[in-house]
Formats: sequence, C-alpha cells, structure tokens
Amino acid sequence: MLQYEKLFSGAFQHLKGNIIRELYKYTNQPGFISFAGGNPSPATFPNKQLAEIAWEVLMEKKVPCLQYGVSAGQMSLREYIAESLSSEGVPAKAENVVITTGSQQSLDLIAKAFINPGDCVLVENPTYVAALKIFSIYQADVEPIPCDDEGVIPQALEEKLKEKTVKLIYLIPNFQNPTGITIPWKRRQEIMEIVKKYNVVVLEDDPYGKLRYAGDAVPHMKTLDSEQQVIYMGSFSKIIAPGLRVAYVVCDEKIAQKIVLAKQNNDMHTPNLTQLIVDEYCRRGYLEPHLKECRRLYAEKRSMMLDLISKYFPGEMKWTKPEGGLFLWSSLPEGYSSMKLLEYVLPCKVAYVPGESFFVHNDGINTMRLNFSNADTSKMETGLKILGEQISRYLSDGNTK
Amino acid sequence: MLQYEKLFSGAFQHLKGNIIRELYKYTNQPGFISFAGGNPSPATFPNKQLAEIAWEVLMEKKVPCLQYGVSAGQMSLREYIAESLSSEGVPAKAENVVITTGSQQSLDLIAKAFINPGDCVLVENPTYVAALKIFSIYQADVEPIPCDDEGVIPQALEEKLKEKTVKLIYLIPNFQNPTGITIPWKRRQEIMEIVKKYNVVVLEDDPYGKLRYAGDAVPHMKTLDSEQQVIYMGSFSKIIAPGLRVAYVVCDEKIAQKIVLAKQNNDMHTPNLTQLIVDEYCRRGYLEPHLKECRRLYAEKRSMMLDLISKYFPGEMKWTKPEGGLFLWSSLPEGYSSMKLLEYVLPCKVAYVPGESFFVHNDGINTMRLNFSNADTSKMETGLKILGEQISRYLSDGNTK
Repeated sequence: MLQYEKLFSGAFQHLKGNIIRELYKYTNQPGFISFAGGNPSPATFPNKQLAEIAWEVLMEKKVPCLQYGVSAGQMSLREYIAESLSSEGVPAKAENVVITTGSQQSLDLIAKAFINPGDCVLVENPTYVAALKIFSIYQADVEPIPCDDEGVIPQALEEKLKEKTVKLIYLIPNFQNPTGITIPWKRRQEIMEIVKKYNVVVLEDDPYGKLRYAGDAVPHMKTLDSEQQVIYMGSFSKIIAPGLRVAYVVCDEKIAQKIVLAKQNNDMHTPNLTQLIVDEYCRRGYLEPHLKECRRLYAEKRSMMLDLISKYFPGEMKWTKPEGGLFLWSSLPEGYSSMKLLEYVLPCKVAYVPGESFFVHNDGINTMRLNFSNADTSKMETGLKILGEQISRYLSDGNTK
Repeated sequence: MLQYEKLFSGAFQHLKGNIIRELYKYTNQPGFISFAGGNPSPATFPNKQLAEIAWEVLMEKKVPCLQYGVSAGQMSLREYIAESLSSEGVPAKAENVVITTGSQQSLDLIAKAFINPGDCVLVENPTYVAALKIFSIYQADVEPIPCDDEGVIPQALEEKLKEKTVKLIYLIPNFQNPTGITIPWKRRQEIMEIVKKYNVVVLEDDPYGKLRYAGDAVPHMKTLDSEQQVIYMGSFSKIIAPGLRVAYVVCDEKIAQKIVLAKQNNDMHTPNLTQLIVDEYCRRGYLEPHLKECRRLYAEKRSMMLDLISKYFPGEMKWTKPEGGLFLWSSLPEGYSSMKLLEYVLPCKVAYVPGESFFVHNDGINTMRLNFSNADTSKMETGLKILGEQISRYLSDGNTK
C-alpha cells in the first residue's frame, strides 16, 4: 500500500480545490441560480462562425493544425496580437508574444520561471483567487498591498518595496477581479514611476479590459513601460470563449524566451487548432462587432443587477458599481460572514462567491463577489430577491461570525 | 533596468531548450532531410474526419464546447478511455482518468504534485529527454537504473530501492524513447513484484503502445497493479495528431484528485473542443481502422529504414530493430561522438538527434536516435546515404571525442 501521507509534494500535501470550482458541485444542479463563477454568457459564444472556421482551418491547414507546433505559439496569431497591442500604445513584435492555454497557464508559467521558494510577490488585496493559489504552490511569500477605491495605494507600494526585495507585483488594473475597481490613469503613472525606481517586474493581468460599459478606456500600464519590466497578460476567454483556452503574454524578449522554456516543459505548445481558429476569427474582422454585442449585453445585465440589488438588498449592504468586467463586489456589515450566509442561501438554490478566499490572509470575511455576465436575466430578479431576503434573515439572526 | 541575473527561479536561471526543439531551427529549412523529431507522419492525419467532427461539435455542443469545463476533463472522453483501458486488462472508471494537454503536461502535473526538491526519481537510461528536463525543473535527484536489451534490470532496480527512498520510477515499457526497446512480459512481472515490495509509484508512459508492427502485444504493467501504485499515461498525439494536444493519465482515484488540483492550477482544463473532437473520433469507430493504416505505413517505413541502414552504414555501426514505435537507436563505435558527427551532417542538410541528452549524466555520447515515422520515403534513401557517407568520413578522420 502506498503511504499517502508522505506521497505528495509539500505544496500538494494539503492543497484544496478553489472555492469557485468547489461551488460548481452545487451550481451545476438544475434550478440553481448562480452568481458565482466568472463565466461569460454562453449567449455570446459565436459558435457558427467558429464552426465554419474550424472546418476550413482543418481542411486548408492540415499540417500546421495537426502536427507539433512551436512552443511560443502560431506565428500568425502572435503577429496579430503584437499589432493589436501596438495599436493600443504598446509597441510589440511577434518575438514579444507567447501564446498560452489560458491566462491561468500564463500565471503558472510566469510563477515557475520567476519564483524561488520564499520570494516575495505583492498583490492587490483582495485579488484573483487562482493567482493566490498558484503563487502559494510555488511557495512565494505573498504580501498584500494596501488598496483604496482606486486600487493599490502608491505610497504603500513604495514602503513595501523599500522594506524588502520583491520578485513580482501582480495587478489587475481594469475591472479588477473580484472588486471591479479600475486603476485611474494618474495612479497608473505613479505606480509605474515607483516600480521603475525599484526595478521590479509587474504582471499586468487584463482579461476584462475590452469589456467596458461606461466611462473612458484607460491606457495599459505597459504603455508606460520604458524599462521593459511589465508582463502584459491578455486572454480570449472572456471575449470569444473560455472553452477554447487561448491567452497570451506580451513582454520583453528575454523574459518571453524564459516563458517559452516553461511552456516547452509544460504542454509543449497550446493546441494549434484552437490557436488557428482564434487567429482566423480575429483576422476576418469578427472580433470588433462581436465585442460590441458583448458590451451591449453585459451593460444591460450590469444595470439590471445594480437596480435589483438596490431594490432587494437591505440598507446595511454596500456594493461597487464597476465600469466594466463581469463582477460586482458587495459587503455585509463588519463582523458578519459571507461564508455563514452561504448556509442560508445554498438551500434556496442561489450561490455567490464568499470573498474571503480572495484575500491573502482570508480576511474580508464579510465580502462577496456577484457575477452578472452569466446570470440569466429571466432569473436574476428571483435570485437577487432570494439573496436579499436571506441576507435580511441572517442579519436579523444576529449571527456575527 | 531589470537585473536579469537575479530575475529567474533557480531552475530557470540556466535552463536551455531541449536539443530536439533546438534542431527545429535547422530541420525547418527547405530541403532538409530530418530523422530528428518524434513526429508522426502528416500523411496519417485524418483531417477531413476531424473537420467534419469539429463543425458538428461546435454546432451541436455549443456550451460544453465553449464554456469553462471541468478540470478533470470531458466526462464522455474519460468514460471512453476508462472503457478502453478496461478492455486491455486495466479496470478503470471515469474517476480514475484525468485528461491533459499532451503527455508532456501529464508529466509536469505529476512532477508538480509529487516531487519535493531532492526527491529521488529513477529512470531508464537513456530515457525521454523532456522527462529528464521536467524532473530537473522540480529539482528531483534523478538516478539511472542500469538497463540491458530488455529494459530495466530487476536486480539493479531492487538494489536502488534498498539503498534509498524513491518517489517515482519512470518507465516507457513499449518501444521505448529513444531505444525502441520493449520490456518483455516476464520482466514486467519481476519489476512489479519489486515495486510492490517497496511501495513506490511507477509512471508507465505509453505513447507508442498501439503502434506495433511485429511480434505480440505485451500487457500493460498496470494490469499487474494490485496495489494501485501505477500511473498509466496515454496519448492521442502519435495515433491521431499531436497538434490537438490531448492525452490522459489513468490512476488511483486519490492520486487522480491531486493531479486534477495540479491541472486546476495550471491550464484549468484542456480545451473542450479538442477533447470533444477526440471523443467523437473514437466513439464513431474511426480510431481502429486509422490505427491499422498507421501501422501499415510505419511498418513499411521501418523496414525501409532498416534495409537502407544495412546498405549504407559502415560495418562499425550498431542499431536496434524495434517492433513498434517511431524510432531506431544507433551507436557509433565507443569513443566517437554523435554531437561531433552532427558538424559533418548538418551542412549536408541531414539531421538526427544525438543521444547524449537522453542520458541522465549525458553519457552515451556515441549514440543517436533516428526517426522513421516522419521520414519522407522518397528522400529516405538520399538522407541515409548521406548520413552513412558522413559517418564513414568522420570515422576515418579518427576524431575520437
């Protein structure tokens, strides 16, 4: 018999699944109204265009599609991404681009190529739960940077950088996951000034940037990257389809080469078929009109959710009003626990993501993330009404913690 | 400016690309005759059937295809694989199967879930070069097990296991890469008896098992796995198309759950589209006739290569006559170097893989791997004639080392 207790690596001995994937067990049940998950709406998936392209690509590009490919990714897609970033003020060539099997993999490859056990990684607090998991698997010393409603506070960042050597700073500047906050232009400039002074690598994770429903676009932090220290992470998951698993990093060529080595020793390369489908989809000009339609749909869902929350949530609740992305962020009064609230809400077949797993030290126990992009508009009112009622019930039970 | 010398993790500070991927730079040039690479023949790629299936899957399974999927993989494909393994004497259920983005990723996920720095991993010597890279990235203490022409020597394996605690044993029992050796049934039984005694996990990597051209099939080592300590690794890369990147592991459920966690924190899941295409391809009964055709083609190429080597290689050369797989393994006389020989051969636009990078301590400098599956039959004679001539030239130059 195998000795299970000694079998797995240190990081995996006690590793648990992340809360969002664990909640799937419930939210997959019929009749469940879920505001959990980070899923885009299936209504947006352009499956007919993708089916046509898949057929053509397999018939016309047999070998590039089916033989082993290059670890950095399909040249045509890398060129498309380089041109696209260049048009957004980030001069890039194909050599700066590495295609990955989803942004989750971008994070894993970067963590693998950069992090030694004990290396310090600074993150917004709260931040993307899977990023926290990945950094912890590589045994990074993850430290939160104090944030306000414009994101990372520059002075607090500088203090951290003075205090100790930092390997990476992980930021989601647009419609942050989970808070929905966007770092304003002025603050992006301040942050970049500081990171230049301390020669530290910044991961600019931008899966939602193209999903803006209000206000003006803010240029990428990488547009200010005169010292080539920003690794920009983009993805087609939220704007075409997550099931295709196509994402990318754009960075200094020397860094890109290390990420390619990590990729070579991971899945060798992202499937050629999905890369070539995404490439064709973009090159045929399908992406822009599709994005317009996504923005229209999500703007509507966002407004609907904000209206319904105002209507049904008790007065003690707070929530953000993000200008884009997929999420709202809401808080119970201090001292109440959104995990505890889940025990009220799950039996009513409604779900959200409790906020604490987005925090470095699992604080923020009173917070929750609500997804509107994948919420069924016909059920949104029912779901939020139930959620509001259960919140009231929980608050009146007075079960603090 | 970033301080590059301190930027990357220990494993990545000096990591180089593997020799096979490095040789691509040459072998991609027009007119090159390459016996390097581990590529299947593009002539076998069933692109029309795959195109039809891709179209249908995208039209009929829009959401399962394009929304986020489950980390362990598509249930239908996991069930197919479980049934298929069960019919080969390995009782398995879907819970025992994890779909990966190619066997390279299977290795990475297993290494990540099992290996702490310094953990001992035993390997055949020589062995798959990318496995050596991956184990070294996770800072395993990789030790060779003495082998003969039937693979791992049981007594030598037992001595190693007595000597120290071993985390994993990595074996390629069928048509081994690079040697082409198959471990006979009797020896598989002996090896399994020993590993049961020492409670150690065995990775049975079997990418080529279905590509047998002579002799009788030998049951998987996992058919002897009464203690659930064998992780069987299979792949569709060599039998459908590597560009799709679909592979799998079959193992004890507790181990599968850890691999799923590694997967969740890596690329979240393998693209649904490629999984569903492979599933449909197999379920429509396309795989068996396709395999028959692959075996016919590769058997012919293998015979042709063996004949041409006999004809053109100088008498001092040795080579294996594998019963399946994609490779022959050949040796120069002791003291000569296949790396040095490459300097003679590359300018003639011919390539093979020098053997030393397949060895744990880069010994075996006189060996080389020759791929026949992807060799163009019309150019095979020209290529092997040139190779034979250059070997003779090198040997007569008397450049030992």
